[in-house]
Amino acid sequence: MNSVGQLFRLSTFGESHGTAIGGIVDGCPAGLSLDVKDIQKELDRRKPGQSSITTPRKESDTVQILSGLFEGKTTGAPISFLIPNEDQRTKDYSNLKEVYRPSHSDFTYDSKYGFRDFKGGGRSSARETANWVVAGAIAKLLLHSVNINAFVSSIGEEILMKPYQDLDFKQTENNLVRCPDEEVATRMITAIEQAKSEGDSLGGTITCVAQGVPAGWGEPIFDKLHARLGHAMLSINAVKGFEYGSGFCGTKMKGSEHNDIFSDGGKTTSNLSGGIQGGISNGMDIYFRVAFKPTATIMKEQSTINKKGETVKLQVEGRHDPCVVPRAVPIVEAMTAMVLADFYLLNKNAKI
Amino acid sequence: MNSVGQLFRLSTFGESHGTAIGGIVDGCPAGLSLDVKDIQKELDRRKPGQSSITTPRKESDTVQILSGLFEGKTTGAPISFLIPNEDQRTKDYSNLKEVYRPSHSDFTYDSKYGFRDFKGGGRSSARETANWVVAGAIAKLLLHSVNINAFVSSIGEEILMKPYQDLDFKQTENNLVRCPDEEVATRMITAIEQAKSEGDSLGGTITCVAQGVPAGWGEPIFDKLHARLGHAMLSINAVKGFEYGSGFCGTKMKGSEHNDIFSDGGKTTSNLSGGIQGGISNGMDIYFRVAFKPTATIMKEQSTINKKGETVKLQVEGRHDPCVVPRAVPIVEAMTAMVLADFYLLNKNAKI
Amino acid sequence: MNSVGQLFRLSTFGESHGTAIGGIVDGCPAGLSLDVKDIQKELDRRKPGQSSITTPRKESDTVQILSGLFEGKTTGAPISFLIPNEDQRTKDYSNLKEVYRPSHSDFTYDSKYGFRDFKGGGRSSARETANWVVAGAIAKLLLHSVNINAFVSSIGEEILMKPYQDLDFKQTENNLVRCPDEEVATRMITAIEQAKSEGDSLGGTITCVAQGVPAGWGEPIFDKLHARLGHAMLSINAVKGFEYGSGFCGTKMKGSEHNDIFSDGGKTTSNLSGGIQGGISNGMDIYFRVAFKPTATIMKEQSTINKKGETVKLQVEGRHDPCVVPRAVPIVEAMTAMVLADFYLLNKNAKI
Amino acid sequence: MNSVGQLFRLSTFGESHGTAIGGIVDGCPAGLSLDVKDIQKELDRRKPGQSSITTPRKESDTVQILSGLFEGKTTGAPISFLIPNEDQRTKDYSNLKEVYRPSHSDFTYDSKYGFRDFKGGGRSSARETANWVVAGAIAKLLLHSVNINAFVSSIGEEILMKPYQDLDFKQTENNLVRCPDEEVATRMITAIEQAKSEGDSLGGTITCVAQGVPAGWGEPIFDKLHARLGHAMLSINAVKGFEYGSGFCGTKMKGSEHNDIFSDGGKTTSNLSGGIQGGISNGMDIYFRVAFKPTATIMKEQSTINKKGETVKLQVEGRHDPCVVPRAVPIVEAMTAMVLADFYLLNKNAKI
Repeated sequence: MNSVGQLFRLSTFGESHGTAIGGIVDGCPAGLSLDVKDIQKELDRRKPGQSSITTPRKESDTVQILSGLFEGKTTGAPISFLIPNEDQRTKDYSNLKEVYRPSHSDFTYDSKYGFRDFKGGGRSSARETANWVVAGAIAKLLLHSVNINAFVSSIGEEILMKPYQDLDFKQTENNLVRCPDEEVATRMITAIEQAKSEGDSLGGTITCVAQGVPAGWGEPIFDKLHARLGHAMLSINAVKGFEYGSGFCGTKMKGSEHNDIFSDGGKTTSNLSGGIQGGISNGMDIYFRVAFKPTATIMKEQSTINKKGETVKLQVEGRHDPCVVPRAVPIVEAMTAMVLADFYLLNKNAKI
Repeated sequence: MNSVGQLFRLSTFGESHGTAIGGIVDGCPAGLSLDVKDIQKELDRRKPGQSSITTPRKESDTVQILSGLFEGKTTGAPISFLIPNEDQRTKDYSNLKEVYRPSHSDFTYDSKYGFRDFKGGGRSSARETANWVVAGAIAKLLLHSVNINAFVSSIGEEILMKPYQDLDFKQTENNLVRCPDEEVATRMITAIEQAKSEGDSLGGTITCVAQGVPAGWGEPIFDKLHARLGHAMLSINAVKGFEYGSGFCGTKMKGSEHNDIFSDGGKTTSNLSGGIQGGISNGMDIYFRVAFKPTATIMKEQSTINKKGETVKLQVEGRHDPCVVPRAVPIVEAMTAMVLADFYLLNKNAKI
Repeated sequence: MNSVGQLFRLSTFGESHGTAIGGIVDGCPAGLSLDVKDIQKELDRRKPGQSSITTPRKESDTVQILSGLFEGKTTGAPISFLIPNEDQRTKDYSNLKEVYRPSHSDFTYDSKYGFRDFKGGGRSSARETANWVVAGAIAKLLLHSVNINAFVSSIGEEILMKPYQDLDFKQTENNLVRCPDEEVATRMITAIEQAKSEGDSLGGTITCVAQGVPAGWGEPIFDKLHARLGHAMLSINAVKGFEYGSGFCGTKMKGSEHNDIFSDGGKTTSNLSGGIQGGISNGMDIYFRVAFKPTATIMKEQSTINKKGETVKLQVEGRHDPCVVPRAVPIVEAMTAMVLADFYLLNKNAKI
Repeated sequence: MNSVGQLFRLSTFGESHGTAIGGIVDGCPAGLSLDVKDIQKELDRRKPGQSSITTPRKESDTVQILSGLFEGKTTGAPISFLIPNEDQRTKDYSNLKEVYRPSHSDFTYDSKYGFRDFKGGGRSSARETANWVVAGAIAKLLLHSVNINAFVSSIGEEILMKPYQDLDFKQTENNLVRCPDEEVATRMITAIEQAKSEGDSLGGTITCVAQGVPAGWGEPIFDKLHARLGHAMLSINAVKGFEYGSGFCGTKMKGSEHNDIFSDGGKTTSNLSGGIQGGISNGMDIYFRVAFKPTATIMKEQSTINKKGETVKLQVEGRHDPCVVPRAVPIVEAMTAMVLADFYLLNKNAKI
């Protein structure tokens, strides 16, 4: 289904080349001050056409709030929003009507639904993630005491090795790749430009840190905080993996090395747990890492098949990101905010 | 909440030291032949006390079906089951009443609920996973044309490097660590015994392969097949990460290397997509990898704090696995089966 | 929450005096031919300003489909729609800012949310039901072999005594009150005009008949077909009661009189069961009756209190229906169609 | 599905002639004092075999709590419970294997599932309602400041005309029919005994009053408080109708008569709204009425058909209530308590 969240709940709609995309945020408590500028600011971070290393598709991504607000405050009613699609060059895609692009959803949508909206990927377009950024911006307002900072921690083989504690998150927005270390960022940009010049694409990772989450958020069994975060991240287009705290590296450690020893007030001296124990936040920083594959759409000629099963050559000419990772930073933050907002609300009923 | 799945839905209950654990499987279609032996066989794979490298806790883990069957077939009514707890040595845990074990859920449960059931971890015990194995066994019966095979692919630094295509899954159950490569398995066992002798613990990874899933299972946006698989895996105790297809390694590849080229009938020549494109199965093998941290309970003395915030020494004496990974193999399979069963049912409404 | 349905699911938004109302229909299978005219036709039946006995508020209620369609067919993606608000005379309502209208939701919204959108009732306005009519029109298309006919069966003390079998549903739309018996309809219209001239309002009942539902729709326990129908009807503004089959009258019968005797092929000679036995359709006509209270907004002066608790006089001057029952006929049909569509989809998984 | 409630959520299982019925209550906050005696007391009110006017089936209906409690308090973990079936005279039902009992679910279950558990009605048995009484008893503890009182307000043509305000709810349990007016109760008992002597059955109505619910519970659109109450009541076996406040009678009133005028502090001088306005409680008494058809199982010989479609004579010999209404009183209260508990929890997130 096209909804996510139990109490703070987003339902979305829209295709790449329809008149608009949008959604409904249900369950936001009444009385929250909400200015559309706060939302637009987050959307502007995601929008395309911002630099030489992103798609030249032009979309102002201007959000309109249609309901749920009264005199600047949420009313408890559903908050609906629209983002009109402006730059719909449909002809770019007409050659894709009968062809399955490699590692796209063309084949699977046809298999599932019997046919597909072939214009710009239809519903499968990452344009959908703009909706998530809107809902995430509202969630951020609700969680005013929580700070969520995501940043690009690798592009291809260019890896930011510093632990997040040594970074200044304020630097993240200072460069095109959203890596808060200027020197690594420069290398990442070079790598993307190189791939772009070859008609190729790159992947990478994003690290996200949530600070200020009190102990007690999350549910013990099937709604573990990290399981819901993982679900949210794996919902983002092109994501192939998720790890939190020590992650895959932790599998090589011994228990005596890996355990986080409590010092005072429930603080721990290390934080390999990533701020979550038994599925519930422990008051330490929550951090995790998300893997993005290289963009499937490349400018190089590829071999593929058409609907009849015939082998054909495919030469894409549309407008695409040679690397989606930098633009995914606000999306990762938005999904994190939505998950946390849901647990904030759910946790009000933990005790009588 | 303590339920998972949309149409094939499991709700569970039970604590480590209560009289029983159990659950309800709702949404299983009527007319499925179900023999309790098929379930017990899966449970026997998970049960404790089976070897020198697992906890000596003795539980026969005998499942009883209480409802939903009539003359050997499911009726469409909820299938409920009980697994009595037999070996409840409560005194083992009395010394933990006031103490927060490192990297356990003791502190977070207290933070969330105001107090906790300190006997054997209460609801946070991995004993809960026996319930999942029961539901997974039913899901496997429903998915008779799908083969799900999980195996241990690393223990600490001992790593199985062979691709899954070169393995004989029939070998998985032939050794204590459930690694289908005998030589690597031997090294893994040695590593676990070494850790055990030091009062320490190890982590590792499990790889899971689902074969025979037709194209079309999964939903495009928030119920992507891999997002639901990730959620399911991250629900398992001690799991720190999930990746499917090329996973984290794929982030270092270029698009031209990573794209899976279609050959005939929708088959692809490579499968870095891991059998899932745009959140929907494409008919190729689905495979993924799950990271488990080292068991938090170790026999070494550790420093920690008690409820009053005082630093205390902790020497655990209970019965624990030095490495939970081998016992988690049937759990990974069960969770996979449940997710797939849900999508099998959901997919019946994809087209008119 | 603002969503209804499990597989065929509507989420809505919008207030009486915002820019638009609208919603998202999720879960409609792909491949259904859908023409916006089919939807508009149903909306036109509900829209205000159609006659002397309804509110003079002018709304064209023109629906726009924003997503989920491709070349005239549903794609499996969410179908979203907008209905712009045109006639927003906000000043009509400014005098209601501080006053609680009797038997409205003014007081309860303030109690719940701390404040309220006082313009036209905000979210509580029956304008919301236009959204339901849109979703119901889609559901009707999905259920092409089911015929759903609602009609006004009483207005105040004017009661249509004929059983539905003796009526010609084609006559329903032939008069202003949507009563398929011309003679009774005339009396009803007279009664409404009389009430209107007194500045007063009337209630009434609607009867709905669904024909062509096959045996097997509905779920045994908490999703009984009649329980979901009742829930849907009781969601409609001003509804005070629901009964199906023999209803409240049936409580005075003996079992030997009330039981429906099977004749052949599962048909029954009587149908006091109302087409539903044990919560599941039995293939006979489904019929039920819905009670509507008289419109709370009347033109007579009333005593009430303001926010400060002071007694004040209230003289409403807005535009209101002296009797909402006739306009509720398409709403009852729409909600019925949505419930049935959901069970149609759910029933595909009843058996293996 | 076999679950009900959003935050306070019951999932149930069990058939009339299995080993046990039971369920899981999920979402009850931690820290609630819960004594199994409080639950058993409610169950004892529902159990069969208590008098000459109920079924002679003997069931002690002893509930066992299996999880979710620690030292007398709820832990936040799911509360599971079992009620063993004791008196399973299976042979009573063997003659029903091939026959469809009139106005039962035999035919519809067969239609839906392809076959059925014919022993005692299987899952369709009203024995299921014992599970609801357990969950309702827990909900009552959570809602300690709310008083819920249901009583029999009619049996067949014997009707209690007094308004509930003139009754002493303490008298309800003083007679076999649970009518708090001794004189009417005597007539009701006579009517039931007369029907029983004729091998026939009677229906009736139950009125329920919930006092002490604060203003603000309920949700505006699809989770109106009365819609959820209606859904809950219509889930009870044999229920044919639901009305709240003025109900069906209110349809004959004028707006000027029906509106509840506010006096002070939000109290109203009349309460035709039944304590609910716009789907949300207003602090006044909530009251509603539920219609029960006469028991379908009668001792008179009836004509029906068998699976082959042949007309056969049916003579039932099992143990059945000539009138289920008195035993349904605690069930109505339990379902009411569950709905209210859910809204109590949901309402914590109405405002920031």
